[in-house]
Amino acid sequence: MPDERLNEPAPDAGGGLIRVRLDLAYDGTEFHGWAKQPGLRTVQEELETAVRVVCRVETSPTVTCAGRTDTGVHARGQVAHVDLPTDKWSAIAEQLAYRLRGYLPPDVTVRSARPAPVGFDARFSALSRTYTYWIADRPELVDPLRRHNVLPLRYPLDLALMNDAAQSLRGRHDFAAFCKPRDFATTIRTILELAWDRDPDGCARLTITADAFCHSMVRSLVGAMLRVGQGREDPGWLGDYLAGKSRTQALVVAPARGLVLESVAYPPDSELGERAEFTRRRRDVAHLL
Amino acid sequence: MPDERLNEPAPDAGGGLIRVRLDLAYDGTEFHGWAKQPGLRTVQEELETAVRVVCRVETSPTVTCAGRTDTGVHARGQVAHVDLPTDKWSAIAEQLAYRLRGYLPPDVTVRSARPAPVGFDARFSALSRTYTYWIADRPELVDPLRRHNVLPLRYPLDLALMNDAAQSLRGRHDFAAFCKPRDFATTIRTILELAWDRDPDGCARLTITADAFCHSMVRSLVGAMLRVGQGREDPGWLGDYLAGKSRTQALVVAPARGLVLESVAYPPDSELGERAEFTRRRRDVAHLL
Repeated sequence: MPDERLNEPAPDAGGGLIRVRLDLAYDGTEFHGWAKQPGLRTVQEELETAVRVVCRVETSPTVTCAGRTDTGVHARGQVAHVDLPTDKWSAIAEQLAYRLRGYLPPDVTVRSARPAPVGFDARFSALSRTYTYWIADRPELVDPLRRHNVLPLRYPLDLALMNDAAQSLRGRHDFAAFCKPRDFATTIRTILELAWDRDPDGCARLTITADAFCHSMVRSLVGAMLRVGQGREDPGWLGDYLAGKSRTQALVVAPARGLVLESVAYPPDSELGERAEFTRRRRDVAHLL
Repeated sequence: MPDERLNEPAPDAGGGLIRVRLDLAYDGTEFHGWAKQPGLRTVQEELETAVRVVCRVETSPTVTCAGRTDTGVHARGQVAHVDLPTDKWSAIAEQLAYRLRGYLPPDVTVRSARPAPVGFDARFSALSRTYTYWIADRPELVDPLRRHNVLPLRYPLDLALMNDAAQSLRGRHDFAAFCKPRDFATTIRTILELAWDRDPDGCARLTITADAFCHSMVRSLVGAMLRVGQGREDPGWLGDYLAGKSRTQALVVAPARGLVLESVAYPPDSELGERAEFTRRRRDVAHLL
């Protein structure tokens, strides 16, 4: 079987390929995001190179992830898949994660690498993604050990106001006002959870779960909620802005630094293929609109 | 008043000087520890330079801390004091911490800078120091965002065994077996608290409080407890080793990376001077033995 096959999707692990699920974590500070870009250091590139070297395949197999993080965004619970020739997998099997960890630089790690259930697609089978955003909103909360993933802010935030404002964002909406416009792509998303609290150290923490996110959507939402939390807008402003359905100059996107992809949820194994089919179909329709 | 006075202790803030308490945090990764050393980057040097520049004094005033951390050791709750000419303090006052933060590099921060109560000495008035030590003892626990202060270990630790072993360390003992020998210095210390638990992420965490620690004592204790936690020694071994009162080749000092100075406790303001006097006297006696 020619190695070129590795660069094509093989959703059902057929044709001498086995689909492997990778669970990953990385510090995004020194990466130009997930997606490969010529000449830039990306998580995808690091991983694909590691898989190629460790599995001794000739060309790097494509690694597909659930949430394509931007430059500077971190992940503690990224999920990806890669299709490997069954003989290469058999030769390494349970040692794969260990060997990948040994090869990878310290800012990215593979927590586990296991054969994926039938029908699994890291991106299209996912039911939802959960992100967190962290802010040290008083100087006493600033911890140099957490400086890579906690945004320092000089003024304290009123989380109660921010949670009030957040009410209007929950559920299914057109989030065009919070998305960078892309032709032919839907901006309708469903926010399942959205809440601010304080972590054990006292830092402000947003936890947000949605079926999927548009590009820079979480950071736009954070930027908007910060306006409310700093008393520059009333909580009601957020719903009005959402209803406006267009992004304005007023909206400042929050820095990547505070954002972490925490987890990705999948349906039970028996529904993985169906879910992937459903997601692909929905995206196709959106694409045609 | 000549600036040379700044390099002498002024415990009672007399002679036109005011003693300022600094509360600090730093990522020790890129520092050669707290204490100034020619040609090396140290926390003390960074701070003294920052105070000199921000307060516009001619020579760097000495900054004295409660716990002189080693190369690579971190702090979230370091306490220090510095004596400033009262006119320099008056000119800046509540703005001092803010200006120091602005001057300092991102791996060290000043959380607050306030006039110290009468009799306060960051080092000698301290009643106790609390350190933590953090270990990710399964690959799934390794978080690249925490790699600077959580030690990765390939084998899981049995914290129950480690807590059993720790029983024999609590209280007042001669910890010579866990200290680098220094002539004329006592190695008698009192451990007030010592317990392993798991943090919310599941990492192993030691919390240890003592009146004071000898050089590399916490890391030696961790090294010894790891032998128990990995099943290489019975819990009873630790008490026997302590009783031996001499450091042996068998003892591997745990890496600096996992160690964080979390807090320093002081008596009520009315007892600060008395405590400092008591500590100094005890050290003098120990020195003569």
